Parts: sequence; C-alpha cells; structure tokens
Amino acid sequence: MGKKVKTTIEIEGRYQEVVVEVPEDEPPVWPPDAKLSVVGRPHSRVDGVEKITGQARYTQDVNLPGMLHARILRSPFPAARIMRIDSSKAEKLPGVKAVLTHENAPKIPWYGTQSFLLDPVCRHVGDEVACVAALDEETAEEALKLIEVEYEKLPFVLDAERALEEGAPKVYPGGNLQGGKPSVYARGDVEKGFAEADAVVEETFRTQVQVHACLEPHASVARWEGDKLVVWDSTQAVFGVREQLARTLNLPLSRVRVLAPFIGGGFGSKLWLNKYTVLAALLARQTGRPVKISLDREEDCVNTGNRPSSVQTIKAGCKKDGTLTALFLKSAGPVGAYDSGAGAGTPLREMYRCPNVKTEESNVYINAGQARPMRGPGHVQGTFALEQVMDMLAERIGMDPLAFRQKNYATNNQVRNQPYSSKGLDEAYRLGAERFGWPAARSRPGRSDDATSTKKRGVGLASQIWGGGGGPPAYAVVQLNRDGTARLLAGTQDIGCGTKTVMAQVAAEELGLPLEHVTITVADTDAVPYGPFSGGSITVPSVAPAVRYAAADVKRQLAALAAEQFEERLGKAPAERLDLRDGVIYDTASPDHSVPIKEVAAKIDQMIIGKGLRGPNPPGLSLNTFGVQFAEVEVDTETGEVRVLRVVAAHESGRIVNPLTASSQVEGGVIQGIGFALYEERVLNNATGRMVNANLHDYRLPTSCDIPEIETVFVPMSDPIANNVGAKGLGEPPIIPTAGAIANAVYDAIGIRITELPMTPGRVLAARRGEKGAAHA
Amino acid sequence: MGKKVKTTIEIEGRYQEVVVEVPEDEPPVWPPDAKLSVVGRPHSRVDGVEKITGQARYTQDVNLPGMLHARILRSPFPAARIMRIDSSKAEKLPGVKAVLTHENAPKIPWYGTQSFLLDPVCRHVGDEVACVAALDEETAEEALKLIEVEYEKLPFVLDAERALEEGAPKVYPGGNLQGGKPSVYARGDVEKGFAEADAVVEETFRTQVQVHACLEPHASVARWEGDKLVVWDSTQAVFGVREQLARTLNLPLSRVRVLAPFIGGGFGSKLWLNKYTVLAALLARQTGRPVKISLDREEDCVNTGNRPSSVQTIKAGCKKDGTLTALFLKSAGPVGAYDSGAGAGTPLREMYRCPNVKTEESNVYINAGQARPMRGPGHVQGTFALEQVMDMLAERIGMDPLAFRQKNYATNNQVRNQPYSSKGLDEAYRLGAERFGWPAARSRPGRSDDATSTKKRGVGLASQIWGGGGGPPAYAVVQLNRDGTARLLAGTQDIGCGTKTVMAQVAAEELGLPLEHVTITVADTDAVPYGPFSGGSITVPSVAPAVRYAAADVKRQLAALAAEQFEERLGKAPAERLDLRDGVIYDTASPDHSVPIKEVAAKIDQMIIGKGLRGPNPPGLSLNTFGVQFAEVEVDTETGEVRVLRVVAAHESGRIVNPLTASSQVEGGVIQGIGFALYEERVLNNATGRMVNANLHDYRLPTSCDIPEIETVFVPMSDPIANNVGAKGLGEPPIIPTAGAIANAVYDAIGIRITELPMTPGRVLAARRGEKGAAHA
Repeated sequence: MGKKVKTTIEIEGRYQEVVVEVPEDEPPVWPPDAKLSVVGRPHSRVDGVEKITGQARYTQDVNLPGMLHARILRSPFPAARIMRIDSSKAEKLPGVKAVLTHENAPKIPWYGTQSFLLDPVCRHVGDEVACVAALDEETAEEALKLIEVEYEKLPFVLDAERALEEGAPKVYPGGNLQGGKPSVYARGDVEKGFAEADAVVEETFRTQVQVHACLEPHASVARWEGDKLVVWDSTQAVFGVREQLARTLNLPLSRVRVLAPFIGGGFGSKLWLNKYTVLAALLARQTGRPVKISLDREEDCVNTGNRPSSVQTIKAGCKKDGTLTALFLKSAGPVGAYDSGAGAGTPLREMYRCPNVKTEESNVYINAGQARPMRGPGHVQGTFALEQVMDMLAERIGMDPLAFRQKNYATNNQVRNQPYSSKGLDEAYRLGAERFGWPAARSRPGRSDDATSTKKRGVGLASQIWGGGGGPPAYAVVQLNRDGTARLLAGTQDIGCGTKTVMAQVAAEELGLPLEHVTITVADTDAVPYGPFSGGSITVPSVAPAVRYAAADVKRQLAALAAEQFEERLGKAPAERLDLRDGVIYDTASPDHSVPIKEVAAKIDQMIIGKGLRGPNPPGLSLNTFGVQFAEVEVDTETGEVRVLRVVAAHESGRIVNPLTASSQVEGGVIQGIGFALYEERVLNNATGRMVNANLHDYRLPTSCDIPEIETVFVPMSDPIANNVGAKGLGEPPIIPTAGAIANAVYDAIGIRITELPMTPGRVLAARRGEKGAAHA
Repeated sequence: MGKKVKTTIEIEGRYQEVVVEVPEDEPPVWPPDAKLSVVGRPHSRVDGVEKITGQARYTQDVNLPGMLHARILRSPFPAARIMRIDSSKAEKLPGVKAVLTHENAPKIPWYGTQSFLLDPVCRHVGDEVACVAALDEETAEEALKLIEVEYEKLPFVLDAERALEEGAPKVYPGGNLQGGKPSVYARGDVEKGFAEADAVVEETFRTQVQVHACLEPHASVARWEGDKLVVWDSTQAVFGVREQLARTLNLPLSRVRVLAPFIGGGFGSKLWLNKYTVLAALLARQTGRPVKISLDREEDCVNTGNRPSSVQTIKAGCKKDGTLTALFLKSAGPVGAYDSGAGAGTPLREMYRCPNVKTEESNVYINAGQARPMRGPGHVQGTFALEQVMDMLAERIGMDPLAFRQKNYATNNQVRNQPYSSKGLDEAYRLGAERFGWPAARSRPGRSDDATSTKKRGVGLASQIWGGGGGPPAYAVVQLNRDGTARLLAGTQDIGCGTKTVMAQVAAEELGLPLEHVTITVADTDAVPYGPFSGGSITVPSVAPAVRYAAADVKRQLAALAAEQFEERLGKAPAERLDLRDGVIYDTASPDHSVPIKEVAAKIDQMIIGKGLRGPNPPGLSLNTFGVQFAEVEVDTETGEVRVLRVVAAHESGRIVNPLTASSQVEGGVIQGIGFALYEERVLNNATGRMVNANLHDYRLPTSCDIPEIETVFVPMSDPIANNVGAKGLGEPPIIPTAGAIANAVYDAIGIRITELPMTPGRVLAARRGEKGAAHA
C-alpha cells in the first residue's frame, strides 16, 4: 500500500541513507532548507480576537434551554466506608430533579477494577459520594447538605515514605506499593561502573505535589438527543472521551458526540474521561434535560490529578575526564488513592551516554487525590534531581557543567539502543550558551552588584530530553472552496497552545494560500476525523503531517484541473510538475508559467475535498526532543528569597511551524517551571487529609511580578525523516529543565545545594543553616 | 479522469446500450433487481425521537449568552417613498442597542439591482424600512413605534391582469411586465395543429396566491466569532446562504459558517438568503453581540414568498382517436414587487406528446410580496389547468380520460427531444388505476349513497411530470470507526423530509451495516462538504449517490485490510472480490468465506475515511419523475362544500430508498395539494394592499378533519442510469396533480367545471349558477 522513500539521517554521528515506507500519496518531507511562505513564520493566533474580546465560548459558557446544574457530594474523610446514605430529604427539596448515590447509580467500574463511579468506600478527601441535579447550582449545593451519610472512618496515610513503612495504614488490602514491587530497569553493571569511577556523588532529592491549576476549571455539559449523547467537555481528547463514554455507557461510537470548542489549558489533567462527565450524562438521561457540571477550584485542585511528589536518591560516578560510568536511582512517589504513575527515572536512563544504569521506582498508594500526567510527567522531577547531580559531579572533577554534559552527549537512544531521527541538542548548547553569555557569566559565582549586599547572584543550566515524536493515527480533511479559500477539519483540539493556528499554517503552506484564507474546525467528533489527545507533545508531529497530506491531496486535484484548463498559461506541464505557492499555481520546470489559484479554484465544481493521515514513523529510530535552559538567579541570603532574573531556553523540536506561538509555549513552560521550582505545593492537613490550599490564593502560582526575561532560541533545523513536516513536539520540553537550572544557579550563587522543592525562603534559610527537610516556609 | 461504463436505457420504447462516463472510483449503479438490505426498506426517521420528545433544536431555540433580539419596521403602504426617517427616539429607549435604517445601513443591492437591503422606496406592505436590536423582543417592538417615518404615498396595483392594463400604476418606471415582454416558446405550428384537430377546447383558469406556511417560521441567529460570521438559519440551503452571505458582506467563504440543525419545512420559501439574516449579521457586528431575529406569522406570510396566482387560457385540439394536435397557453402571473418567476407552462410543453405547442407567459410586477418557488413551482397551477383541459378533450371525443392520456404518452422529452433516462408513468397509470378501481369507479358519475341526497360523488385523475433528476455538485464523507459504526457527513440539510434517514440508509447499505450503526451530520458548513439546496426534488438523486460513493471508498479500504488480515477466513480473495453485506465482509466468489465487519474494523487505525461526489449525469438524456393521482370527492350541491374522500397517488421516482418516509412525502404533497385546491388563498385588502389573512387562523390550511384516506403506490423500479443509486426526486411530484384530479372529480360529480381556485363553497355554488370569477366565499 505504501511506497519506499530514501532519506538520509544521522546515525551515531554519521549520515546514512535509509529507506522508509510512506503511504502512496503522502507528500515527501519538506527538506530542511525548503523555502516556505507560511510555515516557519510568526503568526498571531487565528482565534486571538475571539479570546481577547471574550467571544470565545468555553464549556462553562454552554447554556442550553432547560439545562440543570449538578453538584457533587464528596467524602470529608481520607478513608471511610459509607454505612448508610439517605438522599430522600435532598430529593424533596424544590428544584432538585435527581440524586445519584452508590445505591442507585449504575455500578460502573472506575480506576481500573479498584472502584466504582460511586463507591461505598472513600479513599481520599474529595472522593465522589453522591451527585445532585437541580434547577440551579445553589439548589444543588443546598441539596448536598440534606443528604445524610453515615461513615465508618478508617485509618489513613498521606505520605509515600510513611506508606511504605511497616504497619502503615493500607489503602488497599494488598498493601501500598502499586504492583507489589518497584519497577526496575538496568543496563550494564552499576557496581562495576561505580568501581571504575574516579568521582562518585550521592544525594537525595524531594519534590512536592504540584497541581495542574488550569485557568479554566473542569466542566462538562451533557445532553441526550434521542439515543445519542452529546457532551461539551473541557478536554484534551475529544476522541478519547468519546471512546471512553461509549465504553462506559455501552453506546456505539457513532452515538456519542464530544465537543470542546475552547479549552483553557489542560497540562494533563484533562487527558481522559472524568467521573463528573459520566454523572452529568447519567443525570441528563434520567431527567431528560441537559445537565451542566462545573468543578469549583477546590474540586479542580483535588479531583483532577496532580504531579506526584518524589523522593529520589541518585548515586552517580564518572571518570576524571568526565565520562559517566554509572547512574543509580531509587525513587518513590505517591500515585494517590488510585492507580497512576509516579516514576521519575526516564531522564536518568536516557539523557546521557552511560553504560551502567539502574533505576528502582516505587509507585505508592496514599489517601489523597490520584496522580495524573502533568506537563513533562516524571521528567520534571527527575530532571531537577539528575541535573543537580550532573553539576555535583562536574564540580567534583573541576569541569565546566556545560562541558561535562557535552562530554556525555548521547548520540543514540540509550535504552532502546536506536539512533535518533535527529538530535540538535549540541547546537542548542552552542546557541543557548552564546545567547546567555556562558561561560563568562559562570566565571563570576556569588557576584552581587554591591559587595556588601545580602543578595547573591548565580547562573546554572540544565538539559532536557523528551519524546514528542508523535505518530499515527491522526487524520485530516481539507475542503477547498470555489473562491480559493479552504477549510481544514483536523482531528485535534486546541487546548490553548495555538494548535489551530499551526495546523492552518501547514494547510496554507501546502495549498499556496495566505493563512487568512484557511479556516479550521477542530474538537467536534461529529465533524472532524479522528485525532489523538493533545498531550505528550505529540500534537504537531502527529496531526500536522496528516493536515499537510490532506492539503496535498487537494493540491493534486487542483493541479490536474489547472493542467487541463490552463494549458495556454501553464504550458504543456503535466499535473505532477505543477506546484502551489504564494497564491499561484506554477510549473516547477518553468516558474514563469503560472495562474492565480483563485482562477483555478473558480473552475472547481464547488469544492475539492482532500483527506490525509499521519504516515507511519520510520522504523528503528528514536524520535526525541531536546533542550537546555540557562538561568540567572538572585538569592537574598537574609530572607531566603530566590528571584529568577533571566532564563535562556534553547530548544530543538525539529521544524518550528510558528515561532510566535512556539515562543509562547516555551515561556509558559518556563513560568510553570518557575512555579514548580519556587512556589507551588499542595499542602495536606495531616490530621484531616484535606488540602488546605486548594484555591488560587493559597496555592501560590507565579504572577507576572515573578516572571523574568525569558529568551527563547530554537535550533534552526528540521527533522529529515520523522514526518513530512519535519516537526517534533514542544509542549512539555520547556518546563522540564527549569527547576534544575534554577537550583544549579542557586548553588552557584550561595554555594548551597537545595535538594527539596519548592525553594521557598524557609527552605533556603534552613539549607543555609545546614538543615534538611525543613518544613515549607 | 473518469471511466466509461456501458448501460442499457429505454429510448423511444426500445432498450439501447449507451456508454456514460463516471468518475474513476464511483461504484456502478445498483441494478434494478439488486438485493438490498437497508435501502428500499421502511425505516422510521433517525431523528424521530428527538422530534417527538421536543429535544430537536430549531433556529428559534438557539439562545446565546448576551444575545439581542431584533424586530423589523415594515412599510404600512403598498407603494411609498420615505421622505424622512428619524430613529433617535428609538435609539434612546433603554434596552435598545442599535437601529438600522436606509440612512445608516450599508447600501447592499437586493433583488438584483432593483433595490437595496433597506430602501427609501417601499413597494409593498411589509417592505423592510428599519431594524432594531434590543435586549428583548418586546423592547425592540416598542422601539419600532418610536421610529418616525414620513412617507410619500404612491399609486399601487395589486392584481396581475390589472397591472398589464393601460394606465395602471407602474411598480417600476419601465412598466409592469417583467423583462418587457412575455416569455414565448413554440414548437411545430399550433395554427396548423388546430386546423388538423377534430375537437378543440378553450378555457381560462385562475389560481390563487398560496403561501408556504412552514410550520417553523423563518428565523436567523447571527454571531461574530472574531472576523468570522456564524449564522443559524432556518434554511433549505446552508451552502447557498453561506455563499450569498459571503458575497453580500464581502467575506471569504471560509469565514462564514451556516448551520441549520433542524428545519420545520421550507417548500421553497427558505431557498436563499433573506434580508433579515443580513440585518441580524450587521446588527451583531455593530453591537458585538449575537442577534436573533424571528419572523412572526404575518411577516412569514408576507415577506418570505408565495406561489404566484395565475390566469391561464389554454386552447387544445385533438383528433377523433385522441391524438393531440395542438396545445396553446397564454398565461400571466404576478411576481410581486421584485423579480421572480410566475410561469405555468412547463407541464403543457412537456407532459404529453404533441407536435404543435406554443406558450406565452407573462411575469407581472404588482405591489405585493415577492413570489418564490413553492413546491412544484409553475407545475402546480399549470397542471391544474392542463389536466382539466385533457379531460375536456377526452369528454369531447368520448374517450376515457386515462385512455386519452395513455394515447398521448410521451416517450421522450418533448422540449429537448431527448430520451428519458427512465419513465415508469405507464406503470403508474396501470398500478394506480388498479388500486383505485378505475374505470369501475368512473362508470358511476354523480353517484351518491342516497339518490335523494344533495351530496354527489365523482372521481377524477391527473398526471404529473417534474424534473428531480439532480446532478453534481454534491459531496459526502464517511468515517468508519473501530467499533464498526460509521459517521456520514453529507452535504445537505434535512428540511423535514427525512433526508438524514435516507442518506444514512444509503451509507449503511453500501457498508453492509445496520442503519442504527450509521449516524449522520448535515447542515453545518464547517463540518460537512458542499451540497446543494434542498429543493427542486434534487436532494436524493444528487446527494445519495455521493454518499454511496463515499461509503464505497470506505468499503474499498476495508476490503483491502480484510484481504490482507483475514486470508485464512476469506480465502485468497483479492480485495476487489470482497463485498459487504448484513454485517459481514465476504468473498463474492465464495460467499461462505466471510468475516464480521466488526472484526475487520477492530483492526483499523481508529478510522477509515471515504469521500465521494455526485458523478455527472448521463449526457443526452432527460431525467424526469412522473405520477398520476386518482381522487374521489363528494360535493354538497346545497352548501357547495367539496370533500375529498380518497386519493390514490401512484408515483414513479426511480428507486425508493425509504418507502415509509417516501409515503409521508406523498401524503404531505397531497394534503398541501388539497389545501391549494380547496382552502388556501392569500387575500389582500384592495384599499390598503395589506394581506388580511396573514395568520394560521384566517389562512385556511387543511386540518386533519379535511384529510382523506391517501394511498400511495410507488412504481417498483430503479433508474438504470441516472445515478449510482437509481433514485429520482419525490419532494414536489405529489402536490402537482392533486388539484387537477380533484377538479376533474368535481366535474364528474356535478357536471360543472370549476376553473378558479380554491374551490370554496361560494365558488362552487357560483359555478353551479353559471357565474365565473366569483369572489371567494
């Protein structure tokens, strides 16, 4: 079905020719030096006006005639069994239309097989107990208070280290270690590696729980249209939610429609179907009316996931010349009360060339909200630890931290022993260092403008690896209108990253049209073809190639029409020789022969439809993204306050389709990384298990006052083989190295290594006093 | 680009082989005797539950946050010039957000070049003068009263015959005859034809103005999303409205989205863009808020078109053996105040074989609302007259009316001298007569159950011809899901005819799936590919073949997958030999070899996308639909009341995709035909020019008490060449012959020919008294 295409890639530093199979009609990869008109140029968001004028309609803004509002009763205890539940008084409250409890709700398995949609056992404060649909939110809220619940309180545990101790309360009868044992990876022989080392360091790092804190809280609106379910959902995956709803409610896929017109951030917390969405669908079916359910900020903090905390002990060894000989990680992280992932070991396994590596990662149940992927999951906490260890080793052997990393540069995937489709980290090091002024800045540790000042400045860096190669399945349809404008239906959703803009650019480029002549539909499973979730930094590398493919399909048809109808002006050019660019269709062999696309389009029979799909990834290659961030900080040695003064973020994500939205992506990542490094932390009350700062006043996000100058550098390259656009992902990379770079800069400033996050003034002062594990300030 | 396909068609009664060109991948026509599982079976509407439970959301039901409501100030005079208009008081009314008048609205040409969106000259009562957007309808209505308008009243004319008289007030300076002269058609020599005739009859017929009276009044909601206009519109043509909005407001097609989720009838009144929609869009842009505009029933009657009245004089001659020798028609009809069509001559030119035919048709301006196509435009009034003349001739030569028509059966298109792709009228005659009991019923004219009764019964028939062959452009996309369910995106809208059901059936048939596994999206220009208006009975023959084509594209891909993956169970069958039916994919050469489609679908990479288009019509052929209706009536000779007792409607529209919805279509047509024959009539006040019965109380629609037993007979056939489905249209045919059949039955009952519609008791009694042109009762 496909055709073989030859291409050249770098394998172990040498360029080699390989053959990959691509679908028959897929356009060949744009060469790295392709002259492009729309792609690679900065463009404002195509939906920018809607957003800044408030016209953009989010799920919260969906109001349907006769719509009910639902609220959820949640467990006040971190571990309890419901002995009795009586909703009769709530049901009698005027305005209440339906109440669901574990006694009358369908027994829908949730969290794998560990629980149900509404479960008589509560495993954390906030676990769902009942749900009320009423004429308005206030009435629903009032009704919650009228539901009588008798709980049997059970012992609980809130901390991963404590949960692994002998005699700790068990979240499940089988114990608190998810899977019953740590997840172990090993290559080579770490003992031998440490024996060969000239320098060995060992350190334990602790990172906190971070919550996603999306600007738009989670919400769903459910409506039944006959036997078809329509759901507006603030989700990162309209097709994923469709599939999960169909499975959960036993509906065919074609009877579920999921829409997500505008989405105010996801960061991983909106990757899949949530309980509240199913509750809304059930209540809508029961009442025959649409039901809206909006989580408040407390629910949003507690019930929609979090980046789990970590305790990581790393031991690392290298030779005098800097060559890494062994890396060992032992880590534990809490998945919360339900299965999830809390591992932090990937960067250590993959980032640097090292023959002897071992990781032991434990995922631990505790009585708190479930962990979920959060922007750069595992990598953010893992990189914070690893990159400090790299600096520690470099210092031990007296080597510049950048040179140390360059010395251990991995030219192939260390775990899978595969060449990378492309890796421009070396260039990112070079360009980033140049922009930041490293090593000049490095040579002045602890400097301050005034020698007597208590404020000390320092610089640091950290590297990053991430996946983000994407792949099938992803589909797109392009419709060309008779006036030479086009509509793109792309299997994706725009969670705020600028996806719509980037996809429209790719279509416009292939069609030779200005961007404003391409409009785009996304995030409606009744309109657009299948596409993946917006997560894992896979959107651009997965969907954009499908978009280009669909546009190329239109182009092919348009070229055939032009060849037939405009022979006089195009010469006797066969259709295959015609190309589109800057509004004209022209003969590639004789570029003077051209016709405006508008004139050719006017001849079409109303519409040309093109369809495209994401071709397969080249076999045997590892698709990864890379980057390095340089940070300058100022530490007030008196107050302990850390301020970030400057960040240079140099990233390699293949071809950058839109430098403007890509820069925004990097800035957002760095800002969220600063939040992780300095401010954000979920705090549980040890006595009650309740999150005490589940609001945006007490949960400290970075504000505009905390944000330094952020300079973004993209390595100017294009992946020659990963996909027809040459792009890799960028969503997660920029948050990954930020905390490590800041921690290394703090060490540079004050000579003290902060091993526990966030680096609050209290922790910095405690660390200066030589205390470890100080409570947050 | 296409391939040649051989097929057999009937030309002049002989079957001949012809070659037509079809697109490369288009599936071959289903043979007339194809064994089909879903197509040809009765299926309830796929959206039936939504409609009967009130979940279906019409444009009126669209309510958006911050939405304003608009009302239109309309001319109280049939002809006037606005000398002064002052909206300042209206603008100051609290709640009023914007007022448009001809002084501040953009000068958008309307009705060709004859007028503007808001025009200082008013040409009929109801012409648009100003438009107010306010927080609610009541405030908008209140504000209309505060707009001060000073009119100069002008002379006016309300009647087409009067308008053509010397000295009549002129609607336009150039006179009242549209185009300055009648439209003339001639073939052969009518004078010679009349000279050769053994019998000649001549009669003048008058038909009234009928209004569309859609159950759902016209409405639009306009919202700007940035620089993109989104319009919900109760329309028969989402793509037509998109194109006209784009042109009117100077927007690219891709920046206009038109949706029409549910539509409560159109009948031709919703075929194109209306002023109120543009006013809503302009007000929405000006105020930055969505604007809804809903016409009330009076506006709906006056401003959304009508079936024009007619005065038709027909002279016809035939030989003793019944052979028609000449047909002549002179007609005049009012287009209202703006260009339209009012001709009635097509049936006379096309219905019967006749060598000498002449028609002279005048379209006349009057000071009343514009005429628009209304279900069977021209044909309904033309057939009423022609079919009575046929009966008159038959009576003159003593021939049975059915035999007379069979004698003059046309086996080719009389105007274009082309063979028909198919014509099953002969079979319709046979089957209809058999079902009705003709000629047994015919042999008892004037019979009543009781010889002394004043109620006389009679029977009559009338034939019908209509186009309804459809053609390109029309497009469809089919997406197959991994669970073996499919979504169809069809370029069409369902105005209430069951289009969604029929299209889903065609896709299901081709995909071998049960109907409930196919869901359909229509009427959203941002989701579905281009499709034509729902009018002219072209929907099924235009869109269904594109749908089948798209499904066949999916089937081809699925077959390739099955051939590759299921060799063990399918044998070594090449993909081309595999077919889908009743949920399995099987080897056509060895039907025992099969695999459930569900299993094959489970292997697809989330989705298979197919696209299809309507292939070209076979060249050199005329595509037409035919039918005959038999009616039995009872006339109360004392009161003049006519009751229809029974109608047998025998229609030939090629393959009937859904006999259930097709029967509904026929019943609806007959009912509307009864309304035209007996009850409905726009009445203008001659002194004021105002329609006095612009509401559903005074404008008399047939009610369930007036509706007789209606038996539908479909000629069991399939057009062998018109398109890959074999279907022709059915929307208009059933209304066309009803009034003629009733009139002929009334004559059969009481021996008096009613030449003026509607046949109210007053007119019947007047006709019995020998009076012509009596005022309506």
